[in-house]
Amino acid sequence: MDNFQPTTRNRVKRLHQRAHYDRETIYRILDAGFVCHVGYTIDDHPYVTATSYWRCDDQIYWHGSSASRMLRRIKQKVPVCINVSLIDGLVLARSGMHSSINYRSVMLFGKAAALNDDQEKLQALEAFSERITPGRWRELRPVKAQELKATTVLSMAIEEAVAKERNGPPNDDEEDYELDVWAGELPLRLVADPPVSDPRLKPGIATPSYLTDFDPEGQPKDR
Amino acid sequence: MDNFQPTTRNRVKRLHQRAHYDRETIYRILDAGFVCHVGYTIDDHPYVTATSYWRCDDQIYWHGSSASRMLRRIKQKVPVCINVSLIDGLVLARSGMHSSINYRSVMLFGKAAALNDDQEKLQALEAFSERITPGRWRELRPVKAQELKATTVLSMAIEEAVAKERNGPPNDDEEDYELDVWAGELPLRLVADPPVSDPRLKPGIATPSYLTDFDPEGQPKDR
Repeated sequence: MDNFQPTTRNRVKRLHQRAHYDRETIYRILDAGFVCHVGYTIDDHPYVTATSYWRCDDQIYWHGSSASRMLRRIKQKVPVCINVSLIDGLVLARSGMHSSINYRSVMLFGKAAALNDDQEKLQALEAFSERITPGRWRELRPVKAQELKATTVLSMAIEEAVAKERNGPPNDDEEDYELDVWAGELPLRLVADPPVSDPRLKPGIATPSYLTDFDPEGQPKDR
Repeated sequence: MDNFQPTTRNRVKRLHQRAHYDRETIYRILDAGFVCHVGYTIDDHPYVTATSYWRCDDQIYWHGSSASRMLRRIKQKVPVCINVSLIDGLVLARSGMHSSINYRSVMLFGKAAALNDDQEKLQALEAFSERITPGRWRELRPVKAQELKATTVLSMAIEEAVAKERNGPPNDDEEDYELDVWAGELPLRLVADPPVSDPRLKPGIATPSYLTDFDPEGQPKDR
């Protein structure tokens, strides 16, 4: 796959060995997450909102109520920054200075637009549902016209992008390796506990495989 | 504890039953996380950076290399938005419309300042280390003067703040409770896997209790 061009915004200045501009790395990280943080400004003040997202081809999507302040602002095609950060562990060095966090992250810059076509909106919402719970979309009742109207779906082309990753053990000062202190990694990950049925669940409905097999980092199907 | 005053920025307009302005709720959520997303602007463009943070009293702190673009920008006392979002699970309703995410989140608005006093910086870094790995600070070698100089510690008063939470089962349309589809919650949480010793760990060093007892949501000690 091709590379994104470093620009003044996405070029990593510090620890540049951790930076990646290739589409494969960036899409691998985007596809392993489902919650992003969206940055935007209103009256020159920054706002950061967490929201679920999904990727299809070279677009990133997110959605919400058409009444949402964040969505109403962003669909005016203002500059947006999206950050996806997956926390993989603590890095405990022999000094505070070299202690760190293992992570995978992506920053995207651009402007988003609202989908206006109902079929396009439905396809996007189906892709989101299938990313999180594959096979569930066809179990649900059809989306109502007024629900679709009350939902804004935004998409943004993935054009200005950078990934940063850190993994592996600490990098200590050479003389510190002699110290009598524990050092290494404490891996962290998001896990699912057993599903909790709704108190009003109809009797006789089995727990679906998209829950028993749930993997927060589950990859979307090939498209 | 007292309440924060809703303002044009922190007042929740949609689903306001999910909003909380009391210090107790806001501090409970802040103290359960350790990674935040910081929003700021450079040349009118929004940026979002993930970073670790900690709270002491009515201040939130974060830190990094003095060369960091984010820290150099923010210590100029520009407006900042901090978002802490903890993902607690998927909410699977009987329709896509009412499916959601259970979460705890806090948004803070303000301006940050760099700590200039070395003792203050050291105390702040110790508080951070003790938040994540209680008891480790005294095991580490002392921080060197040039390390302290190379580290910027920012603090921001927690003044304009709002928490939002969602928990519990889905809220479906009444007629949808008759549908033959699974509904409920899939709880999600961050867990630690067993620690991975550094390949160069000195023989005979036991795994410390701050790792075996590690809880990502571990509360800071009373202060």
